[in-house]
Parts: sequence; structure tokens; C-alpha cells
Amino acid sequence: MSKHWERDLANLHRHILAMAGAVEEAIDLGLRALRERDATLSRQVVDGDAAIDAEENFVDNECLKMLALHQPVAGDLRRVVAVLRINTDLERMADLAAHIAERAAVLAALPPVPLPAQVGPMADLARAMVRGSLDAFVALDVRLARRVIAADDEVDRHNREAIDELVDGMRASPEAVLAFLSVFSVTRHLERIADHATNIAEDVVYLVEGEIVRHRPNGGADPL
Amino acid sequence: MSKHWERDLANLHRHILAMAGAVEEAIDLGLRALRERDATLSRQVVDGDAAIDAEENFVDNECLKMLALHQPVAGDLRRVVAVLRINTDLERMADLAAHIAERAAVLAALPPVPLPAQVGPMADLARAMVRGSLDAFVALDVRLARRVIAADDEVDRHNREAIDELVDGMRASPEAVLAFLSVFSVTRHLERIADHATNIAEDVVYLVEGEIVRHRPNGGADPL
Repeated sequence: MSKHWERDLANLHRHILAMAGAVEEAIDLGLRALRERDATLSRQVVDGDAAIDAEENFVDNECLKMLALHQPVAGDLRRVVAVLRINTDLERMADLAAHIAERAAVLAALPPVPLPAQVGPMADLARAMVRGSLDAFVALDVRLARRVIAADDEVDRHNREAIDELVDGMRASPEAVLAFLSVFSVTRHLERIADHATNIAEDVVYLVEGEIVRHRPNGGADPL
Repeated sequence: MSKHWERDLANLHRHILAMAGAVEEAIDLGLRALRERDATLSRQVVDGDAAIDAEENFVDNECLKMLALHQPVAGDLRRVVAVLRINTDLERMADLAAHIAERAAVLAALPPVPLPAQVGPMADLARAMVRGSLDAFVALDVRLARRVIAADDEVDRHNREAIDELVDGMRASPEAVLAFLSVFSVTRHLERIADHATNIAEDVVYLVEGEIVRHRPNGGADPL
């Protein structure tokens, strides 16, 4: 396609990479708010979500403009449609990061309960997957995309262990059930962020190889 | 646009309406599996998800074909892009319905715990919202779309009450925490199905009126 097209595409890439960076930061700050029981920091993450929502609208409109103006076909068409999809995934990931921060604020007002050891590694993996899935898309790097997909199994494993710990905690301290349930929601949100990154990585594999790797037999099973 | 376009659009509508019907049925059967502790019925719902996944791929491809072939602009372009988005929402709703059925199978193997009274009304509302959001899209019926969006608040209210009941149940019977947690997941899945229907209804309002009603200030707040 034309230089104009290449420039528009590069512009789209810049925007979705920036959104991914904002999601990574929101996860990071949400986790810090959780660990430090910092309701102010939590508020900051929740308020920051509006900027990502605005970006989502912007990217959506840019994609529509590109479709109307350049009327791309084949691979170019698939790429723009993939950006539309990725844009939605990014916005949902940002919502989930904000939800983690909301849980941090709730937990800061409750007597403390121990966080499962897996929360840290899950957050680190989720952030790396967000970054990796976007990098894989921009570079159409299938090997990186497949690493992201593989990392999701690791997240699921951590998640199952975290759930076991939380169930033990609730059984041992029924008076703290509400707090444990909030922590359970945090791990679920992290797991879902990883799922969205996996969606993106699966789109990359499809774009490059034409193989549908979505709907893996057990990939979609619900951990709890 | 041409007759060919109208025919292709009507065909798309038929497919997404059929998907919505399958999602409604999966919710219905999942709830029945839950109530009757029927692991066989649960299996049937989980197995049925593959057909909806196949439909999703089909609709995606049809949309890409329509974009490449007709190169629509303005309102027509927005409609096809909306179908792409709705298609994703429908596939996720089907996954969530399958997750409800998975929970039903887990619960069937555990000593029974009482289901919160709100589960039934939540499922009924969720199903009506799935149907309503799709009907609103096909007919571009903004009033119906706004009713779907309003129903989401009702779902959230039921959900909060259900959570209170579940927390009380866990406190009173800590040995049954795992079962209560599975019921908690069911209510969360129902709430998320309603959220996806709300996404679709919000897209309809945007298509018709150009008003972005997504990202409502408190609409996205996490119930727990």
C-alpha cells in the first residue's frame, strides 16, 4: 500500500503500544496499592482509566478512517481489523487493572490478610504478556506470540495455587472471608488480563500463519 | 448500498441472532444443570461451546469478505465493524455460559450449598439482555438498547445481594467455602454476560445516535 497507509499504520501502532504501556503501569501501581494498602494510589489508578478509554475511542475512529479511506484488502484489512480487536482487549485489560486497584482500596479498609505468594509472579507474568503480545503484533513475531500463549499456562498454574491458599485462608479465618474474597478477585483479574494478552497473541499467529489457535481445547477452562 | 449488500447483511444478522439464541440456551441449560446437580447436562453445555466458536470464525470471515468486497463507508462500515465486535461479545458470553456449566459439574460433586435467591432472576435478566441487545442491533432500536443498559443496573443490584448471602454462608459454614466460591463464580459469570450484552446495547446507541455511552462513570465499577 501507499506511504500514507504505512504512516497511518505506524501511527496506530504507536497508540496501541502506548495503551499497552499504560496498562502495564496500571497493573504495577494497582499491585503496589494492594501491597502498601494505599487507597490514594488506588484512586489514582482508577482515575487514570478515563485516559485509556479516550485512547480506545481515538484508535477505533482511526481504524474506521483507515478502512474508509484506504479500503484495504487481504492482509492489510486483517491487520486493521486486528487493531480494532486489540483495542478492545486493551481497554478491558485497563478496566481489570482498575478493578485490581478498587480491590486494593477495599482491602486497605479491612483487617489485613496475607496475599498468596503467587500474586507477585502472576502480576509480573501478566505485565510481560501485555508487552509481549503487543510487540509480537507490531513486529508480526510469531515466536514471541507463541511464548505469550505458553506463559498463560503458567499464569493458570499460579492461579490454581493461589486459589488453594485462599480457600485454606477462608476455612481457617471465616471472619476474614470478605477480605479473602477481594484477594480472590484480584487473582481472577490478573488471570483475565493474561487471557486478553493471549487473545492478542492468538490473533498474531492467525495473522501470520492463518492458523486459528483460539478456542484451545482446555485453554478456556475456568480455573474456578 | 446494493441488493447484494442487503442480502449479505441480512445473512450476518441471521447468524448473530442464531448465536444469541445458542447463548441463551446455554445459560438456561447451565442453570438447570446447576439446580438439578446434573453433571451430564453440564457436559452437554460445555461440549456445545465448540459450535459457537465455529460460528464466531464464520461470522468473522463473512465480515472481512463484506469489507473487502463492498468496501462500505460511513454507517455501513460502522455496522459491519459493530458485527465484528458483537461477534466477539457473543463468543465470550458463550464461554461464560460454559463456565457456569463447569461450575455446575464441580458443585454436583460437592455437598450441596444453598443457591442465593438472586441467581434465578440474574439468569433471567441476563438471557433477556442477550436477546434484547441483539434485537436492538438488528432493528437499530435505541429504546430497546437503553432498556438493556438499564437492566444491567438491576443485575448488579442482584449480584451485590447474592455476594452478601454467599459471604454469610461462608462465614457460617467455612467447611463449604469451596462450594460457595463456585457459586460466587456463577454469579460473576452471569454478571459478565450481562456486561457483554450491555456492550452491545451501547454500540447500538452509538451507531444510531453517535453518543458514546460506554465508559459510564460507575457502570464499570467492580462489584467485588
